[in-house]
Amino acid sequence: MSERRGMKQPGKVYLVGAGPGDPELLTLRAFKLLQQAEAVVYDRLVAAEIMDLIPQGVTRIAVGKEPGNHCIPQSEINQLLVRLALAGRSLVRLKGGDPFIFGRGSEEALELRRHAIPFEIVPGITAATAASAYAGIPLTHRGLSRSVRLVTGHLLEDQPLQLDWAGMADAETTLVIYMGLSNLAQIIDQLISAGRAADTPAAAVQEGSTPRQRQVMAPLGQLARRVTEAGLEAPVAIIVGACVNLAEELAWFQPPTLEQDHAQRLAGS
Amino acid sequence: MSERRGMKQPGKVYLVGAGPGDPELLTLRAFKLLQQAEAVVYDRLVAAEIMDLIPQGVTRIAVGKEPGNHCIPQSEINQLLVRLALAGRSLVRLKGGDPFIFGRGSEEALELRRHAIPFEIVPGITAATAASAYAGIPLTHRGLSRSVRLVTGHLLEDQPLQLDWAGMADAETTLVIYMGLSNLAQIIDQLISAGRAADTPAAAVQEGSTPRQRQVMAPLGQLARRVTEAGLEAPVAIIVGACVNLAEELAWFQPPTLEQDHAQRLAGS
Repeated sequence: MSERRGMKQPGKVYLVGAGPGDPELLTLRAFKLLQQAEAVVYDRLVAAEIMDLIPQGVTRIAVGKEPGNHCIPQSEINQLLVRLALAGRSLVRLKGGDPFIFGRGSEEALELRRHAIPFEIVPGITAATAASAYAGIPLTHRGLSRSVRLVTGHLLEDQPLQLDWAGMADAETTLVIYMGLSNLAQIIDQLISAGRAADTPAAAVQEGSTPRQRQVMAPLGQLARRVTEAGLEAPVAIIVGACVNLAEELAWFQPPTLEQDHAQRLAGS
Repeated sequence: MSERRGMKQPGKVYLVGAGPGDPELLTLRAFKLLQQAEAVVYDRLVAAEIMDLIPQGVTRIAVGKEPGNHCIPQSEINQLLVRLALAGRSLVRLKGGDPFIFGRGSEEALELRRHAIPFEIVPGITAATAASAYAGIPLTHRGLSRSVRLVTGHLLEDQPLQLDWAGMADAETTLVIYMGLSNLAQIIDQLISAGRAADTPAAAVQEGSTPRQRQVMAPLGQLARRVTEAGLEAPVAIIVGACVNLAEELAWFQPPTLEQDHAQRLAGS
């Protein structure tokens, strides 16, 4: 590429993981970058509480998935980042969870590299870790789980789910399924066919760490029905494995719902 | 348990993930709790830069592993937390990475629950995510990796490593091995025997995100030798899978070493 004298230096793009939703689970680095940003390009699924931390006057551009609406193709998001950076703007690309775990951050970073735009990757608390902590379900525990596996239940362009089912059958691995809500019954059928016991403890955790956290626990073979009955809504993390039973003792988080506030006031506490 | 009038209310124990070492990768919640703590019980492996953030005058108690020294048994750590909390002290139990991923946080939390001591779990950036971001190796990438698996290579009491080797052979899963340095040759032999190709791209990342970050990239079959030649020291995260090759384009982090500072001064930049 020839040197383009007189053109602006490209801005730097910070690919930042916003974590699971609780603003307090942002990293110090993510918080500082949001305070200093000229512009923020954000996924619509990033929690409103986090967007509220961005100073007034900062340009905000929403991209990515919104349930029920069409989403902007990844190639257009890539082009938007390149265009803004080549115009000389430093910007934060804010993504739910961690940019390098089911976040497509690497596709955006590759595009930036190909245009010689400098970037930085800021890791975030991924949904598995947040759901684990806030539901009281350790991902590993001596004697129960010696490994953790993260998979996505999201279908690419209506293709059948092709996962390494046999590799997910190990009884001593805690399995966490991202974006698995809409295909949950099919995923569970495949897991059980592959050898995972139908009575394996399992949980579905909606929006872990936020005031909207709700969870359902059931044996794997009953989880899909129970999740439907409870009416959980995406995003939901599904956790499968013996560690789930520890939540009976380890659950500590009570989402601060309006109902609870009301009850506490009635009780005078 | 009978009510013990006149005794202190137990303190609350915050089981906090310190992340990988860079203080800027602490969560806002972890940072705030460290500022307010009465006492901090910390693993010796927590980075000095993070310990420096704790205000002067706060009691600090080191526990856990230190390379080359005997370590305090987990049962003694559990008892220490219970004793401090029952004496009425609120404290932070600071652990490297995330408390619920190979952190034994759940063993400590179970002991607290059995003594009716209130606790909170604060998730942290786990080593896999940090090494991934700072080495430019995405854990998932369309067409290369559709799942992530975290395992530990640490031996329990000199028993042979018993892992789900067959389940780790999937070519489209990124494998991250924690605490695998001392058994690396054995782990790699087993992986290759189980079907993982010897030419699978692999990386060893020492202290990802810190000024001490160093990394070695090599085909899986050559990694152990190359790591030995380079003299990497624990903690090291091993990453295995096709995504490792993306680091050629996605690497962005240059640890600010003294040598580089020196070179930059010489170059006048």
